Amino acid sequence: MKLNDIPHANWQLARRADRMNPSFIRELLKLTEQPGVISFAGGLPAASTFPVPAFQEACAKVLRDDGPAALQYAASEGYGPLRETVAAMLPWPVDPAQVLITTGSQQGLDLIAKVLIDAGSRIVVERPTYLGALQAFAPMEPEVVSVASDAQGVDMDDLAAHASGARLFYVLPNFQNPTGRTMTEARRAALSQRATEWHLPIVEDNPYGELWFDAPPPASLTSRHPEGCIYLGTFSKILSPGLRLGFMVAPRALYPKLLQAKQAADLHSPGFNQRIATEVMKDGFLERHVPAIRALYKSQRDAMLAALTREMQGLGLQWNAPDGGMFLWAQLPPGMDAIELLPKAVAKGVAFVPGAPFYAQQPDPGSLRLSFVTATVAQIDAGIAALAASIREHRQASPC
Amino acid sequence: MKLNDIPHANWQLARRADRMNPSFIRELLKLTEQPGVISFAGGLPAASTFPVPAFQEACAKVLRDDGPAALQYAASEGYGPLRETVAAMLPWPVDPAQVLITTGSQQGLDLIAKVLIDAGSRIVVERPTYLGALQAFAPMEPEVVSVASDAQGVDMDDLAAHASGARLFYVLPNFQNPTGRTMTEARRAALSQRATEWHLPIVEDNPYGELWFDAPPPASLTSRHPEGCIYLGTFSKILSPGLRLGFMVAPRALYPKLLQAKQAADLHSPGFNQRIATEVMKDGFLERHVPAIRALYKSQRDAMLAALTREMQGLGLQWNAPDGGMFLWAQLPPGMDAIELLPKAVAKGVAFVPGAPFYAQQPDPGSLRLSFVTATVAQIDAGIAALAASIREHRQASPC
Repeated sequence: MKLNDIPHANWQLARRADRMNPSFIRELLKLTEQPGVISFAGGLPAASTFPVPAFQEACAKVLRDDGPAALQYAASEGYGPLRETVAAMLPWPVDPAQVLITTGSQQGLDLIAKVLIDAGSRIVVERPTYLGALQAFAPMEPEVVSVASDAQGVDMDDLAAHASGARLFYVLPNFQNPTGRTMTEARRAALSQRATEWHLPIVEDNPYGELWFDAPPPASLTSRHPEGCIYLGTFSKILSPGLRLGFMVAPRALYPKLLQAKQAADLHSPGFNQRIATEVMKDGFLERHVPAIRALYKSQRDAMLAALTREMQGLGLQWNAPDGGMFLWAQLPPGMDAIELLPKAVAKGVAFVPGAPFYAQQPDPGSLRLSFVTATVAQIDAGIAALAASIREHRQASPC
Repeated sequence: MKLNDIPHANWQLARRADRMNPSFIRELLKLTEQPGVISFAGGLPAASTFPVPAFQEACAKVLRDDGPAALQYAASEGYGPLRETVAAMLPWPVDPAQVLITTGSQQGLDLIAKVLIDAGSRIVVERPTYLGALQAFAPMEPEVVSVASDAQGVDMDDLAAHASGARLFYVLPNFQNPTGRTMTEARRAALSQRATEWHLPIVEDNPYGELWFDAPPPASLTSRHPEGCIYLGTFSKILSPGLRLGFMVAPRALYPKLLQAKQAADLHSPGFNQRIATEVMKDGFLERHVPAIRALYKSQRDAMLAALTREMQGLGLQWNAPDGGMFLWAQLPPGMDAIELLPKAVAKGVAFVPGAPFYAQQPDPGSLRLSFVTATVAQIDAGIAALAASIREHRQASPC
């Protein structure tokens, strides 16, 4: 592929660049970023939960006590005390030597793609799945196969039909993005057992697991079978996404290659940020801080569920009731298309994300994702009422 | 390639993982990190130059005035005011819309590799060149061709013989890593003209350009032919490497693909860090700060040159006198191997980096790199004396 519009330069793109396209959601979000529009569209945590005073103290302390070291180049593996903090906070035995600090967990996906995916390699994902993972894997040109999932998690029969020869199965068991679903204990046990039998490597992505409302989700897949899983975590949802700090826990045999990929990608994640996060989390900070996030998000989920029950009567919309996380998944009445509905909803003052882009295959045009964490309860009430009005109007305009 | 030592998991590595190997220099540096060893080996800026008080003020201000936004997700292109600062600090007309903020300039190399290199694509580099670039390009499996360079810069005849069909020519014109060399105005003019004629894309990496001692280096290649060049810059050498902030200036036609690669790699570089850097650089800070770094590094270069003249008499060592940057390049007497010399030098209390790993092809075993910026003048004196002693001893032990 040549870019012929540049005089006197012959920029020829790599074949993989064909697979790099503007995020559909990113383009949609521009559409929705209009003054006065209530947004259930973004994937942002509530900024009110960011512990600004704790960051102020931590920045001052790190720069006062350890300034030159914090501002110098550092080890690609990550800051030792942060790797120890990560190992200690995970509820199964983890050796800090297996923890790799990444520039957000998005970078973990990029490193995994580089180390494990050849052009044409089969990889298996849930249907639907996290769009950013599809974007991270795409440049390495995999054959992406999606398997059905239901409210209990991945469909084991469909997985059995597609797992053979796959390089990896990418799965988000907790409060999944986009569906908000959580994989049940029974499904996890079955998946873990079958994956072991099949020798199917698992990439377990867990950005939302700490955001449970009433009870923690079942134990991770990685804890059941650490040598068969790469585990991805992040501080974006419990501290701050603006630090760009995530981590992976990798089998010992894979760690050196992932580390080398990390080193080539950005040398190391910012040591300054790693020290600040370590300092903030000292003395059990998360045990005090995360429950406040859970309580806030639960109240917002409850408000959205109540508003949906109140406003959507007779409209044929279906939705789930997530046990944690940031997202709720809904289904428009048969025949209605979420992408077509979106501009009408925005005109009425509310935005959401159509579900179709989250499907690697067989998109469901009637699905949509609603974030309940960035709007206030009053905005949730008004926004769901506006969404109901747009569905009502759209249904009348194009009767199915 | 399978990792067969993992029970019940079939981790199969991508072909490109064969090209990811532990950095030879990284392994060497472990050898040299012994107490009491004076190191000319690392590529670290002098930590004493990091403006800790300015960072303290900037952190406090950013968190006080703009905390939640600084800690939230942000645009993949980078923080608007930082992109404007970058465009304004470059001495040719640059549209901020063409500036992409990266997680260190190392990430720029990774993004370029993804967007421009197919397996088997020919890319051209200087002989020797920056090892981290070779590591960033390697996963995309290029055919790397190196062209000769001399004290004036790249050898134009050798480049002419190898440029045909190349996807890019990667070059560091200013105070190069590892050689400390600067490309002359005449060579730049010739390269720029010939590259235009050949339609040869240039990737111009300029981490050290601000660190000139007596006069700024000649104008960049990019300023002569912006649509034929990608320009890479960094804040690592003038502010702090621990922030992991670099940037690229890309032709308009390439920018969208590089941006999409960036988004897939880590969503965005830390917005908190971008705001801090912007705040620190306000009101002409660099115009006061960078001259102090230049003066310090010049005094250290002078000390190393004086020590070399004093200590190396009759030993057959040759070295250059860089006009800026952090590194000096030396040549052992004919027949002497820098990798063999290193453990003997370490035993005498001094470390350097052998030059061989910086060669994509035809390594020169007698070359070595000396950093003059992390040791004090007293350490430079003692370290060069120890290096002379080790050369003397090694020469006697194995007469050429």
